[in-house]
Formats: sequence, C-alpha cells, structure tokens
Amino acid sequence: MEFDGSMEKKKRFKKKPGSVLQVDALTDEILQGNRSALAKGITLVESNAAHHFREAQSLLQKLLPSSGKSIRIGITGVPGAGKSTFIEAFGVFLCGLGHKVAVLAIDPSSTVSGGSILGDKTRMERLSRQPNAFIRPSPSGGKLGGVHRKTRESMLLCEAAGFDVILIETVGVGQSEVAVREMVDFFMLLVLTGAGDELQGMKKGIMELADAIVVNKADGANEPVAEKTRLEYKRIIHFLQRSTPGWDTKALSCSALTGKGIPEIWTVVRNFRDAVEESGVFGERRKEQIRDWLHTVISDHLHFSFYQNVGVKSLLPKLEKDVLNGEKTAAGAADELFEVFYKR
Amino acid sequence: MEFDGSMEKKKRFKKKPGSVLQVDALTDEILQGNRSALAKGITLVESNAAHHFREAQSLLQKLLPSSGKSIRIGITGVPGAGKSTFIEAFGVFLCGLGHKVAVLAIDPSSTVSGGSILGDKTRMERLSRQPNAFIRPSPSGGKLGGVHRKTRESMLLCEAAGFDVILIETVGVGQSEVAVREMVDFFMLLVLTGAGDELQGMKKGIMELADAIVVNKADGANEPVAEKTRLEYKRIIHFLQRSTPGWDTKALSCSALTGKGIPEIWTVVRNFRDAVEESGVFGERRKEQIRDWLHTVISDHLHFSFYQNVGVKSLLPKLEKDVLNGEKTAAGAADELFEVFYKR
Repeated sequence: MEFDGSMEKKKRFKKKPGSVLQVDALTDEILQGNRSALAKGITLVESNAAHHFREAQSLLQKLLPSSGKSIRIGITGVPGAGKSTFIEAFGVFLCGLGHKVAVLAIDPSSTVSGGSILGDKTRMERLSRQPNAFIRPSPSGGKLGGVHRKTRESMLLCEAAGFDVILIETVGVGQSEVAVREMVDFFMLLVLTGAGDELQGMKKGIMELADAIVVNKADGANEPVAEKTRLEYKRIIHFLQRSTPGWDTKALSCSALTGKGIPEIWTVVRNFRDAVEESGVFGERRKEQIRDWLHTVISDHLHFSFYQNVGVKSLLPKLEKDVLNGEKTAAGAADELFEVFYKR
Repeated sequence: MEFDGSMEKKKRFKKKPGSVLQVDALTDEILQGNRSALAKGITLVESNAAHHFREAQSLLQKLLPSSGKSIRIGITGVPGAGKSTFIEAFGVFLCGLGHKVAVLAIDPSSTVSGGSILGDKTRMERLSRQPNAFIRPSPSGGKLGGVHRKTRESMLLCEAAGFDVILIETVGVGQSEVAVREMVDFFMLLVLTGAGDELQGMKKGIMELADAIVVNKADGANEPVAEKTRLEYKRIIHFLQRSTPGWDTKALSCSALTGKGIPEIWTVVRNFRDAVEESGVFGERRKEQIRDWLHTVISDHLHFSFYQNVGVKSLLPKLEKDVLNGEKTAAGAADELFEVFYKR
C-alpha cells in the first residue's frame, strides 16, 4: 500500500534537469506494474506545483494507449453504510479470482475534516496485504484542476499498470457522485436497512445514478430486515429513471462481514458489462465521458483563472453585496468584473 | 398579449441618440403597469445586439428596487401533460381574485423546432383576453448570456410592472427545470395518470425539485384513475428528498377543463408561502438565487468568450478527436486551447 504525505511530495519532485528521464523511467516501471512507481506517478498527477503539471501530462500521454482496459466501478453510500468494509471484502474476493484491484477515493469532506476516507491505513488492512491490490487515499483539491481530474487521471495510470478492476469510492452526500458516475462504467449505491429513514440523508436523485443498490450488513439478526429493505428498494426503483439505457437497476443485498452476496454482486457487474458492451452503450458512454473530461478541464481552468484574478478577487465581495442588496444587476456586476479581468 | 417577432426587435431598437431618454420613458411606463412598454422592455432584455445590452442593464437597474414583490411559480411537466391549459385555467382563476398574472416560458426545444411553447397565440386565448394577464413566449438563446438570464430579467421587469404572480413554464425533459427551480419560490410538476409509465420519460430527479406534484386531467371517466395516481405519487414522495426545507411535497389533482382542484392548488401555494416566510427559508432561498444568478452570468460569459474565440473554434474539433482517440490527454488538449485563447 502506498501513502504519500504532502511534505514528501514536495521533496520527491523537485524540478531538476533529469525530469524527462525520470518520466521515461516512471513510464516503464508503471507499465511493468510496479506499485511504487504507480504511487509516484499518481503523486505527480496530484501535485499542485505548476512544473509538475507538464511532467504529469507527459507521463499520462505516454501511458494513455495502455489505459482503458478495466471495468470501472463507482461505489457510494452515506457515511456508516460500510463502504470501507464492503470494498475490502469485494476487493479481496476479486484478488482471489486473479484480478488486479485498484481502489481510489474521492472525498469532498477531506479538506474539511483534515483526513480522508482512506486516510486510516488500518481500515483496509486485509486488502492492503494482497499483492494484487493498490489502495490510494483521496487527493486534496488545488489549483491546477480539481479533484475529479486528478482521480480520473490516477485511474488511467492504474489501468496502465495492469489493474483491471478500478473501485472508486465516494461519500453519497455531496456533488462528487455525479462526477464519479461520469468516470465509471458501473455505479453502485450501498445502503443500510430502513430505506425511508436513510433516504432523508441521501443526496437528491442519487438512486437514479445507480446501476445497483446494495443493502449491506445483511447478516445475523439483520438478515430478514435487509431482505425487506431490498424489496422496498426494488419497488422504488420501478418508479425511477434508469441510470444506464437498457439496464434495469438491480436491488441486491450482501454482508461484507460474512461475504454472503459478494460473488453475486460480481456476477451482476459482469452481466452488466456483457449487456452494455453488446448494445454499444459501454463504448458510447466512455466516449461521452472522455468528451466531458475535456470540457470539465476547460471549465475548471476558466473558473480558476477568473476567480483567482487579483482584480476580480478584490472587487467581487463588494459587487456580490451590491447585487444582493438590489443595487446592481448581476449582468451589470459581471460586466464590471470582466472589465478588470480582461485588462490583465 | 404581446408578441415580438425577431425582425421587429431589430427595427425597434436601432441605436440612436435618444437611447437614454428612451430608457427613462420606458422605466416610467413599465412602473405604471403599461403592458406594451413591458413587452418592449423584455424585447430589449432579450436582444442579442451588444448596444442593447447596456440599455437593458440600465433599464433593469432602474426597475430593480420595484421588483421582487411577487410569488414566483415554476410549472413543468412532460409534453402532453397539459401545461398550457392548466396555466390558462390557473391564470384566469387568479385574475378573478384580482391578481396580476405574468406567464413566461423557457423552452429549450424552441430553437430546434423553430417555434416556442407559447408561440401559438390561440393556446391561451382566454387568459390573453384578461386585462390583468401578460403572456410572453420564450426567448431565443443567443450571445450575451443564455435564455435563463433573459427569463430571470424578464421576470424582474414583470414584477416592476406590478405583476404579483409570475408563472414560469418549462418542458420537463431538459436541463431547464433546474434553472427554473433556481429562479422561483414554488415549483410544480404537472403529471398525467399512470405514474410508472410516465416517469420513464421524465428527467432524473425532477420529482425532487417539486413542491407539489399535480395530477392533471382529473375529470370525467379519468377521475378515479387520477385519484389512484395521486395516491401513488404521494407514496413515492415519501421516499424522496424534499425540494424545500420544512415543506412536505404535496400530491394534488385537478382538472384544467372543469376547474376542479384549481382553487385548492392556490391554497397550497399560499400555505407554502406562509410557512417558508415564517421559517426564513423564503428569504434565504431568494438571496441564494441572486448569488447564483451572478455566478451563472459570469460562467455563461466565460464559456461564451472561450468557445466563441476564433482560435479555439478552429482548434477544438481536431483536439477533441485526438482526446477521443487517446492520442492526447484532456489537460494537454486544454492547455493547447488556452495558449491560443490567452494570445487574443
């Protein structure tokens, strides 16, 4: 398992004359499946330093032809739904089948809480001991594009390193599930028993992003309740929009503790892949995702350069107040900001 | 009723020395509730000509203090749900109570089909004959900010002209319901009988934008089915996120044909307003909407100036293809575009 503190990052990638050679060496090592090189590559991609940006893009460019050969699975659920234990059980099961499993995380709360979902190594101890697993905590946000670009690019690196199952974890309370849905093939919503109550805490429309809703902790005394919950979800799904054309969202249950239901989830994922590959939806979605990726990068950059502009930064609070007080129209205020912005 | 063809627009607002005077005169006439002046003002706001932009903003600036004193109601539903007949029945009823009712429309399909939702005058004939009603077809998109800015600004003009109920119509299949939800106080989803089937054609998450779901065409032989559908929706609502904090989404039924249920809908809207004004949600939401308005205008402008840039326009197709073929990373392609963009 590879963890890189941000202090280490800065040291490891100091600008030096050997950068091009370093990228070439890293490329080869990643293509050979070297996990430590992969971790270094992701650190490069995640770096907020401007001079690392070029190196990271050059690395990605070289690895791009070797990416794409995995099934990408997004996993979300409210805090407490047991995402970590599920991913561990699912990951260990997949390693047992001979798959190479990479786990990435998007955690919008990490900047607030100071930690990340996977920050605690001990939480996936069993999976981290697998030689075919790679676990990476969520990147921090930053200047050169957001967390989503970084996660997508990290995923491509993992694929180039030979990982054929990518699990992307996100907390189901923010804006990040939509971003994850836009980078994965299959999206899974992990829930607990007691559908009605739990849904109160869930993000609007999140069920309609899911290809499968999985009731976790279906073990012991909880099993009959879990089955009841599963049937409730099955009924609700009927009223909702499908996430993937031609695929009926499934309601499943499992126990990350006993392992019951885990193989069945993998069967559903494989059936899904077969179905959408045959219909062409798989390829179409990936194409669309690549296009979105480009335009997201553009949009991030545009907003960043605007809102970080010194003139805009100093004017915005006053103008926002004026608009709120009804003293200025939004277009009028925006006009003043753009005059400053374009005078750079 | 006021309709302005785009040919007329161009003629009416030719740049001339009297522009300032014209705006002053228009301001006064709109404040006096003159519908023909209001129509002219909206035409100015909707104009895509650069020199009209300043005039429109100056007009808005003057009218802004007189805006905001209405209840803003968004109405959506799939094509065929009977939005026009409902709005007509609801509008005539409200005029009968002494309200001044303005109807605006956002129709994302109008640029495709060549017509707009309300393009056909005869569709709201009864309402258009009311002295206290103002009906405006949807604006076409264009250069200086999108349809949403124009609709929001038109709404402010209607309020300054004394209209105290604003109905904003949108088709429930595109991206525009979210935009409408962001400019109204109360959002209504119009549906037909047969919930399950109909929902297939609805946009993801649209029910969770609604403060009330109204089953239309509850008349004649259809009445018992409508009641059954209403109860189905009531049951589904239980599992969904609320659109407005502190307000349980209502499931209602009505007949635009017989008028049955129409007064009850108005009662629900008034109850809603009382509840959210007392809780502070009403004012908070309006503030948030104003802030969103500013940042939407900024974002629209940024994207417009980028994607309309001559260099960007000529490079983009090739780069998009390179990214799709895996020959370039998104960030690499974006980088090339920004180099061109900033060299303007």
